Amino acid sequence: MDKETFRKHGYEFIDWVADYLENVGEYRICPDVRPGEIKQKLPKEAPGKGESLDIIFNDFKRKIFPGMTHWQHPSWFAYFPANNSPPSVLAELLTAGMGAQCMIWETSPAAAELEEVVMEWLKSMLALPKGMTGVIQDTASTSSLVALLTAREKATGFESNVKGFKEPLVIYCSEESHSSVEKGAKIAGFGKENIRHIPTDKDYAVLPGELEKSIFEDMNKGLKPCCVVATVGTTSSSAIDPLDKIGEICKRYNIWLHVDAAYAGTASVLPEKRWMFKGIEYADSFVFNPHKWMLTNFDCSAYFVKEPDLLVRTFEIHPEYLKTGVDSQVKNYRDWGIALGRRFRALKLWFVLRYYGIEGIQEMVRKHIELAQSFKDKVEGSPSFELMAPVPLSLVCFRLNDGSSEGELNRMNRRLLEAVNQTGKLHMTHTTLKGKYVIRLCVASRTTEKQDVERAWELIDEKAREILTPSST
Amino acid sequence: MDKETFRKHGYEFIDWVADYLENVGEYRICPDVRPGEIKQKLPKEAPGKGESLDIIFNDFKRKIFPGMTHWQHPSWFAYFPANNSPPSVLAELLTAGMGAQCMIWETSPAAAELEEVVMEWLKSMLALPKGMTGVIQDTASTSSLVALLTAREKATGFESNVKGFKEPLVIYCSEESHSSVEKGAKIAGFGKENIRHIPTDKDYAVLPGELEKSIFEDMNKGLKPCCVVATVGTTSSSAIDPLDKIGEICKRYNIWLHVDAAYAGTASVLPEKRWMFKGIEYADSFVFNPHKWMLTNFDCSAYFVKEPDLLVRTFEIHPEYLKTGVDSQVKNYRDWGIALGRRFRALKLWFVLRYYGIEGIQEMVRKHIELAQSFKDKVEGSPSFELMAPVPLSLVCFRLNDGSSEGELNRMNRRLLEAVNQTGKLHMTHTTLKGKYVIRLCVASRTTEKQDVERAWELIDEKAREILTPSST
Repeated sequence: MDKETFRKHGYEFIDWVADYLENVGEYRICPDVRPGEIKQKLPKEAPGKGESLDIIFNDFKRKIFPGMTHWQHPSWFAYFPANNSPPSVLAELLTAGMGAQCMIWETSPAAAELEEVVMEWLKSMLALPKGMTGVIQDTASTSSLVALLTAREKATGFESNVKGFKEPLVIYCSEESHSSVEKGAKIAGFGKENIRHIPTDKDYAVLPGELEKSIFEDMNKGLKPCCVVATVGTTSSSAIDPLDKIGEICKRYNIWLHVDAAYAGTASVLPEKRWMFKGIEYADSFVFNPHKWMLTNFDCSAYFVKEPDLLVRTFEIHPEYLKTGVDSQVKNYRDWGIALGRRFRALKLWFVLRYYGIEGIQEMVRKHIELAQSFKDKVEGSPSFELMAPVPLSLVCFRLNDGSSEGELNRMNRRLLEAVNQTGKLHMTHTTLKGKYVIRLCVASRTTEKQDVERAWELIDEKAREILTPSST
Repeated sequence: MDKETFRKHGYEFIDWVADYLENVGEYRICPDVRPGEIKQKLPKEAPGKGESLDIIFNDFKRKIFPGMTHWQHPSWFAYFPANNSPPSVLAELLTAGMGAQCMIWETSPAAAELEEVVMEWLKSMLALPKGMTGVIQDTASTSSLVALLTAREKATGFESNVKGFKEPLVIYCSEESHSSVEKGAKIAGFGKENIRHIPTDKDYAVLPGELEKSIFEDMNKGLKPCCVVATVGTTSSSAIDPLDKIGEICKRYNIWLHVDAAYAGTASVLPEKRWMFKGIEYADSFVFNPHKWMLTNFDCSAYFVKEPDLLVRTFEIHPEYLKTGVDSQVKNYRDWGIALGRRFRALKLWFVLRYYGIEGIQEMVRKHIELAQSFKDKVEGSPSFELMAPVPLSLVCFRLNDGSSEGELNRMNRRLLEAVNQTGKLHMTHTTLKGKYVIRLCVASRTTEKQDVERAWELIDEKAREILTPSST
């Protein structure tokens, strides 16, 4: 493809993205397609001869795009978001255009050093302990796996890497912890049975007394406690585990403390929310995702460690074909995580942090929190609805409650969620809290405004009334 | 950023990428920067207030870009390449613009189904066994880790996931295998000591007899063989392990066979190169990287398995907050690998396969192989140089040899590589083969033409003469 052809198509693609970013709210948020429907529209074999980009782009618009879920929609209230932003999208274009593979310093010095710089920026913005060092991973799942592996190596004096996993090591987390803890524990060879899911209080935060009791029981059985995963902002309800109390316990028993703040970490940019991170100085490792609530295209997970030497020692490899003359003077990030090859992820983060500035990010986070609080007020002000968890940030957990049995309420709320989502106007997801089916509404999309949250409430309330008034259904 | 501003900057960025893709060959291939030099040019803190995209883009051009290594340079002969291509770059722009997080079918049905389709296309193009099923991973390191984990679970009846790693399991690979095998073995809890590095023949291919002997010895010691990693196209010299013979051994002892063809896999698009994959029907898993030699932007690793159920059972998690109504009818790729979150990687691969077509990719691969053969002919035709390994594909391993001692030859070739690379006109890397320092020249960049390879030879020959003629240095 010559330069002029690339330029012509590039402009068309930019136009398309510009339109999309402006009009994303006009699409049905989740496509109305059945499993297999898109696949059926596509040929079973790759073409023998190449096709023109016009034809491919046209097929994209006709066959692929109609099957996309619109994560950037202003009424995206599901899961946690994966925000992109115009400066981040443009930076991704540069990254793709340069096509550098940034596994070691020499294979792109600027990528390695910019990563170091932006991670220092984040550390300072979030008021993380000064002694920590950051590195970009793809996702929080990977970051937490990396933490578990480093904890495993530290606990065994780096013997597991050499001799393999021998004796059981125990991981502690909340019963509300993310599924990635279980997945990581399986991958790293701990085994699911060696995870203790510690009970939580009425706000779904881990009970430090229960944690200590569990550690004590294991030690009495001759088992070795290895790692505690604390969560600031759990996936189900954004519950906040008390880091200070957990940290003291970890220190007392010499246990690795990993803090998963995948979503909530961004809130530490607000001084008024830093109480959530009280005790963070105990953390051996900490993860939050700029790709969630900090406007940086997925994937970009920010992982910080107290002792980078332990991290590097866990992952380092030294094949001859990767050695360079400057290895002793630089950070070769290939040794800071799972994969060898690395994209230039720091660039989009740099674009975002500079374009919005600290104040721009603070403003967005404050706005989301306010909008969520206004939705929470509606829930609390309605006789039909029940707030199901505290709302320290921008996630509201609620349900419809007409006094029916718990079983009936679970069914009723599932119907409500389905009815709302089926309109295609907004998207929410669910969870369970202490066995109760709960609807989650997370206000954290870049494009979400006051009227979107108000419309969400109106629609939810309308569908709830339909469910509560059998005659109208 | 409003639509018109995005469009204006988007056009500028497209222009920049268009120029870059055309002129990449004019840059110094590796930047002439010292460790820390780029970092020093950047502020220590993120800006409080946001800045204009003009300023940021300008800083990118002045401070970041001059520190980049140019992987898309026509004289990139280092490592294995990480090719991008115009259609792939443009598809990445769409992916970034939509910003969808494709962890499960419902969070983007089109992404899930397109992934299924393009993986079937690849399987057919590469003549892989019909029964295999594909999934996109980020890198071959991750794919091989996924293979080791699935092998671990199969060997223990899925008990390791539950109870943790108990008894030693043994992994077999060539002494020439990629470092990711060791890294994966450590991560998955096998331990480095439980990897057997099987000796290779004069062509650096694994000796099946030695493999079987090693398996037999372990079984006699009461150790359990778990997985054999065979390589088609080793990193050091593109050696080809004999899959048929290895496969028979794996079948006989019921051992998982993982085939790492990260670079060479693409060559299976050529019928005349399929002899390299003879015995592929024995493979339980197979990986090759479209991001290496198939014009698809990094990252995109194609992983194929014989029994997807084993893969899913190894990784599946079922938290309430990720359940959807269609889970039983669809592929939720979150359960097919390490990370939960997933980018829409299938889109760029689809753009590439359609734009170039099977024939376009075949043509490129054939050209690279021919160019490498022409370079090999120069090496063999020169009294000063020595070919160090067979050249079945497009990687040439050679050294300068004036009859000095091995120690002196190692030093001399290191000097030669440094002298050539320091010109900034081309980039090669090195390895060792049976203790000998060897220079690697891999012809596999999209932009490389005949004259680039000829110029490379001239430059190498010139620098060699300088080294061999002390008076001229």
